[in-house]
Amino acid sequence: MFSEQSAKAGITYPKGFLAAGVKAGIKRSGNPDVAVIYSEKEAAVAGTFTKNAVAAAPVHVSKAVVATHTAHAIVANAGCANACTGAQGEEDAVCMQEIAADALGCRAQDVIVASTGIIGQPLPMDKVESGIHAAVKALSLDGSADAGNAIITTDTYSKAGTTTVALGGKEVRFGVIAKGSGMIRPDMATVLCFITTDADIDGVLLQEALSEVIEHSLNMISIDGDMSTNDMAIVLANGAAGNPKIKEKNADYEAFKNALLALCQGISEKIAADGEGATKFLTIHVKGAKSFADAKTVGMSVANSPLVKTAFFGEDPNWGRVICAVGYSGVSMDPHRTTVKFGGIPVYSDGVGAAYDADALRAVMTAHDIVIEVDLGDGPEEAKVWTCDFSYEYVKINGEYHT
Amino acid sequence: MFSEQSAKAGITYPKGFLAAGVKAGIKRSGNPDVAVIYSEKEAAVAGTFTKNAVAAAPVHVSKAVVATHTAHAIVANAGCANACTGAQGEEDAVCMQEIAADALGCRAQDVIVASTGIIGQPLPMDKVESGIHAAVKALSLDGSADAGNAIITTDTYSKAGTTTVALGGKEVRFGVIAKGSGMIRPDMATVLCFITTDADIDGVLLQEALSEVIEHSLNMISIDGDMSTNDMAIVLANGAAGNPKIKEKNADYEAFKNALLALCQGISEKIAADGEGATKFLTIHVKGAKSFADAKTVGMSVANSPLVKTAFFGEDPNWGRVICAVGYSGVSMDPHRTTVKFGGIPVYSDGVGAAYDADALRAVMTAHDIVIEVDLGDGPEEAKVWTCDFSYEYVKINGEYHT
Repeated sequence: MFSEQSAKAGITYPKGFLAAGVKAGIKRSGNPDVAVIYSEKEAAVAGTFTKNAVAAAPVHVSKAVVATHTAHAIVANAGCANACTGAQGEEDAVCMQEIAADALGCRAQDVIVASTGIIGQPLPMDKVESGIHAAVKALSLDGSADAGNAIITTDTYSKAGTTTVALGGKEVRFGVIAKGSGMIRPDMATVLCFITTDADIDGVLLQEALSEVIEHSLNMISIDGDMSTNDMAIVLANGAAGNPKIKEKNADYEAFKNALLALCQGISEKIAADGEGATKFLTIHVKGAKSFADAKTVGMSVANSPLVKTAFFGEDPNWGRVICAVGYSGVSMDPHRTTVKFGGIPVYSDGVGAAYDADALRAVMTAHDIVIEVDLGDGPEEAKVWTCDFSYEYVKINGEYHT
Repeated sequence: MFSEQSAKAGITYPKGFLAAGVKAGIKRSGNPDVAVIYSEKEAAVAGTFTKNAVAAAPVHVSKAVVATHTAHAIVANAGCANACTGAQGEEDAVCMQEIAADALGCRAQDVIVASTGIIGQPLPMDKVESGIHAAVKALSLDGSADAGNAIITTDTYSKAGTTTVALGGKEVRFGVIAKGSGMIRPDMATVLCFITTDADIDGVLLQEALSEVIEHSLNMISIDGDMSTNDMAIVLANGAAGNPKIKEKNADYEAFKNALLALCQGISEKIAADGEGATKFLTIHVKGAKSFADAKTVGMSVANSPLVKTAFFGEDPNWGRVICAVGYSGVSMDPHRTTVKFGGIPVYSDGVGAAYDADALRAVMTAHDIVIEVDLGDGPEEAKVWTCDFSYEYVKINGEYHT
């Protein structure tokens, strides 16, 4: 359902969307750092935002846009987060919105604003302004990859994807670009996720679908979606596909939501796999839980354990660290009913370590993608959490000055 | 109040206690690995234990001892945690207790048992048995340092301390040995803390005092006391000082509790400073909170942030990571009323970065001991949390096979 981005894929795959990414000189590296995404028709918009009490200025501005349920465009920059920048930061975020609206010929209140990068420094507004003008001039059907590259920070590559679903005999398309990057825990690795679709759907229902989908996708990465000062996931739905407008929770709504879920789970896996310094992509699959919330809590406890992460970096099948993290998750569990498997191989059951084929387990541990399965033996619910290992490189990336 | 261990200090500083530590061959390094602490008189005992649902066998055994409020001795080994070892593990823990009781000439139900080391491997009981016999033969007034060395694992040194308090005209002494070691987060860095005192105090009051003190000392290290499968803090009080027995919450009880608090806070700082791979000792001092619980939550959020820890490893005054961790702690806070100081130098206030003297701040960041002060401006309560930075060495220590 989730296909790789091709030249014209990503956020310009759905009808009626243009995108661009340009170099404005905000990033010290000189890489692209200003992106614009434009819907030719006014679109329904929905968004989910960081729950951090220290939310950045663009979050405040974009929340107000989402509250109106309609938008025309997204303008984003990387290299500077415009967070902890006080009244000047709020002004600058509004100014970004106005510059983009002027250049695009739409209302300022129809422009979503996003920033990512260093906290506590003011936006270099001269560079931002010329960047936005250049990006608007460069808008094209081929601009998704450029836009994707303009929103990344320590990501090693831009994440993108597409999917489709048939609604009322019409092909409805979805595209997404996103950036992590990954770190081992929430903290402040900003996640930006911009989704386009040509579906025709009521704005309130779009918000409901997005909120539910994000809970089962971006919020299942151990890089918690709700932690950075700047996180946001935005979807624009412009109706260009011509499907019967979704106005109630009918079969079309379910199909739309499932397609959105597949898109967002795919992009979540890519974000987790590209964690800072990551050498392994880890899926923690918790089964046999009383509730989804319990399964998620256990999965996050394992995914957030630095000892688990360093063990997998060292390719050490140290199930003791996994069962320990399960034990302190806060979820009631019986050690004797719980089983742990690495790559399908049981390593812990009945309260003790399980006998295993050392060669087979070594093959699991030396692979890049590893599934850690925890079965609590206590109910029907399950959850998957995605994360990465914890390497020397992570410490190097984050122990150096970023300012 | 808290003095360094001398030759006869540590746990044999209070009257009527003997100790020993010997090499039994359980640690692969060949270092000392079996310790015995013995009170010549039967003592009142109190303990606090891990809250991990996957608690190790010695925790179960020792909880039963503490429930009787009396004990004569502690037997401990390092190198093997006897955790996730099933029915055999429970038998082995009881067997350790019985071997020590036989050798000491006391009842098995009066012997506390503790283990630390690798999870999931059975105790080598032949080595444990000969080690206990050797340790009992070696018991002496000079044995505290040996006992301290026999309980450490990845600690770079043994932690010990003493203090005194006058109760009813009598000098009452306290001694402590402890092991961390330190890692950046709870997980399963076992904390063992063995306290001796010659105070005469009722066992129920002793438990109440210890529980309160641990909440403000060991549980304020970001190596949470309640997380490992094997954590325990034990105090033996043998009454040899001859003070009027503490039977109620009078002034003597308060003085006793304050001395115990000073002892435990001192040892907590040492455990935090010796975190695995640590190059910095960090004190997070949260002020202006509505409650102690809020202050602790905020302090732990900062202390557990890998991004904060790697920033201090890199001597980067990245206050953005600190304010971000404050913001996602879950405690209600106003970014505009919150101030952050590093080593007394304001770096964040009024919602933005503060101007600072770069040379002065560099001197703070390059020091070994750094105080991070967070004032929420919202109430009278405060808390201190102790942690360490996060280095390449941490990843190296934990990314290598320990089995």
